[in-house]
This record gives sequence, structure tokens and C-alpha cells, in this order.
Amino acid sequence: MLTLYYGSGSPYAWRVNLALEHKALPYERRVLSFALGDLKKPEYLALNPRGKVPVLVDGDFVLYESSAIMEYLDEAYPAQGQRLYPGDPQRRALQRRVILEMNDYFEKAADPLWTQAFGRKPEERDLAAVAAGRVAARVELDRIAAGFAGDYFGGSAPGAADFCVYTMLGFVRRCELKVPEVAFADLIGPQYGAWMARIEALPYSDACIPPTWKAAA
Amino acid sequence: MLTLYYGSGSPYAWRVNLALEHKALPYERRVLSFALGDLKKPEYLALNPRGKVPVLVDGDFVLYESSAIMEYLDEAYPAQGQRLYPGDPQRRALQRRVILEMNDYFEKAADPLWTQAFGRKPEERDLAAVAAGRVAARVELDRIAAGFAGDYFGGSAPGAADFCVYTMLGFVRRCELKVPEVAFADLIGPQYGAWMARIEALPYSDACIPPTWKAAA
Repeated sequence: MLTLYYGSGSPYAWRVNLALEHKALPYERRVLSFALGDLKKPEYLALNPRGKVPVLVDGDFVLYESSAIMEYLDEAYPAQGQRLYPGDPQRRALQRRVILEMNDYFEKAADPLWTQAFGRKPEERDLAAVAAGRVAARVELDRIAAGFAGDYFGGSAPGAADFCVYTMLGFVRRCELKVPEVAFADLIGPQYGAWMARIEALPYSDACIPPTWKAAA
Repeated sequence: MLTLYYGSGSPYAWRVNLALEHKALPYERRVLSFALGDLKKPEYLALNPRGKVPVLVDGDFVLYESSAIMEYLDEAYPAQGQRLYPGDPQRRALQRRVILEMNDYFEKAADPLWTQAFGRKPEERDLAAVAAGRVAARVELDRIAAGFAGDYFGGSAPGAADFCVYTMLGFVRRCELKVPEVAFADLIGPQYGAWMARIEALPYSDACIPPTWKAAA
């Protein structure tokens, strides 16, 4: 039995949740509370010294870092459910490239969006920083769009890159609740918009929406 | 024939150079000049829109992002030379985790070291920032050391994680030339020091030292 240590709202935990569902693997989702400090308690720091989610536990094997976890699920359970990565080495490489681009470049570009939305009081928000973050995020989305391989980054079916990009964009969309100037639909444009709708139509997508977001909606 | 677009001093290009040698793959190394702006020329931006090295070209397949390139080399040429990743899924996962930790956490922690060394004039350097960067970098090195699997991160032989960590530490060592307070040997400690010496004793290690560093030595 697999255990996913999870925190509601973390795009990194969310992407692994989607990956587990995509592979139809049995797992237990243990929801930790950021507010109660669950991630900084000694028993959790023993699993991940940085006190971050997600962590995957598979028997006596403990793994942190969401990108490594998605690769592991596909390699340790190759015959289970749907693949997270295509078989062809070149197509696999392009999926990995998209994941790296999202983690390294998009996150840096879009950082002002969540910093202003969640790190500032309303009266302290810097809308010029939001505007600059939108421009930088759009530049990266244009570059990353080169990785679309049909309906999905994964080709005709979604895969690890789709879950990675989707959850990060879901997190940006969340910023709009605090800062309407994020103007999410306009920021991502029709290509990403239609693709997000496809992800949201997947049979397991609803069940993976961060539970605190559902409760607040 | 493989082509590696390379810049002297880039730890990302250096790690792929080591990976190609480790796999004994035939390749051409095309050295671009940062100073002459080669990386921002239209013909190079057509290969990598971010204007960074490395890029690998394999026939008509173009790939950027060093971590994706190392995976690709091992998957596209599985029978060639020595493996970059172990075969066992759990050991593969731990190698990938080390690479992600180095790229995401160590780089952020150690950023003040190269910012102060290469981004500031001598009279403008902030030695308090260097000291804080040393402390933060050491915390991450302690965490990442959990990934050692014998003589190397790769086990009894070096692999992708070794080349990733080694080249980043090689870059930090370079900072010491400008800022002696980096105190590199003391910063990394004996475990990493002995491991770096093992990497440097590999038969292809010398040939991969960034050529401008050799020239200046």
C-alpha cells in the first residue's frame, strides 16, 4: 500500500495525487495541516528534512520531490493503470523538459503573482509587480507550449507533464481570488484554457481538487 | 553523431560533457562564447529560446535542459558505455531526488556565493552575505549527503547525480578565487572532499574541465 503525505493547496502534492489516480494505484492520502504545523513536526521531518509535501511511502521506501515521485510510480508499477511518461525516449525527454521548464522558469517568472496574492495584505499589494509577473509568466507559457504533443503534453493522453503544468496553473488561478488583476483566463489564453478544460473533464480530476479549496468555494 | 552546444564555465554544460564521456558516446563539442554573445544569436535561440547551454542535438532532435539530456542519453543509448542511472527503480528515484535537491535547494542556498564572487566588484562585496550563503549551503549539503550510496551517489560507480553535484561544487570552488572567504574545503567537508577527489581521478575528468579555467590556471 502506498501512502501519500499531502497538504491541501500544494501544487506539488496535487500533481502526485493526480498521478496516483491516473495510474489507478491504491493509496492512502494523509492530509497534513500547514496551519497546525504538521509539516514541521519531528515525525514528518524524519520523512522529509525540508518539511515539504508531498512524500510518498512505499513499504519501507520513502521518497520526496514530486518529479522524482512521478517517475518512480511509472517505473515501479509499469503495468498498472495508464502510463505517466511515453515509451519513446525523445517523447519522454520532451515531457521531462516541460516539467523542468515549469519548475525552474515558470515558477520564477510567476512568483510575484502568488507573493502579492498570498504574501501581502490587500493594502500592501504592488499591482505593478503583478503586471510584470503576468508578462514574464506569459513569455514562459509561450515557450512551454512548444511541448504540447496533441491534446496533451503527453500526446493523446495526459501524463506527468500535464499534471505538473495543470496544478501550477491551478495555483495561479487561485491567486485571482485575492488579486483580480491576475486576470487568469486572459493570462493563459485559449490554448491553455482548452487544455485545462480537458484535464478537468478527466474522471478523477474532481476528486483531486484541494479539499480546502472545495470547502471554501 | 551527437552535438553538444557548450559554454566554458557553465556547470550545466559541464555535467552533460561528463555524462557523454561516461557513456563513451561519440560527440562534437561546440564551444559558444558568453562574451561574444553567441548564446543570444538568432541561430542559437532557434535551438534554445532561453539562450542557455547546454543543448544536445541528435540528428533532427533538439533538447535543452541538462537533467532531461542526461536521462535521454541513458535511454536512447542504453547499451553504450556506462549507465548514468541505476536500473533499480528505488535507486533511480534517489538519484533523481539528489539532482532535484541540487538544482532547487542547493542552488538557492549557495546563490550569494556566486553573486558576490562574480556579480560584485571587490569593493562592493558583502562578506556577511557570503557567510550566510555558506551556512545555508552547508545545511543543504548535509541533507543531500543522505543520497550517497557508497563511493558515489550512483553506488559503486558515478552517475548522473554525481556529475550534477560535482560540477555545481566545482563552480562554488571557482568562487573562492574571487572571495577567499568561501573557504571551499572547509565548506564542503571531508566526505564531499574525498568524493570530489574520486571524480577527479576518473579517466575522462581532466578533459572535461572548462577550457577557460584551464587556460587561466
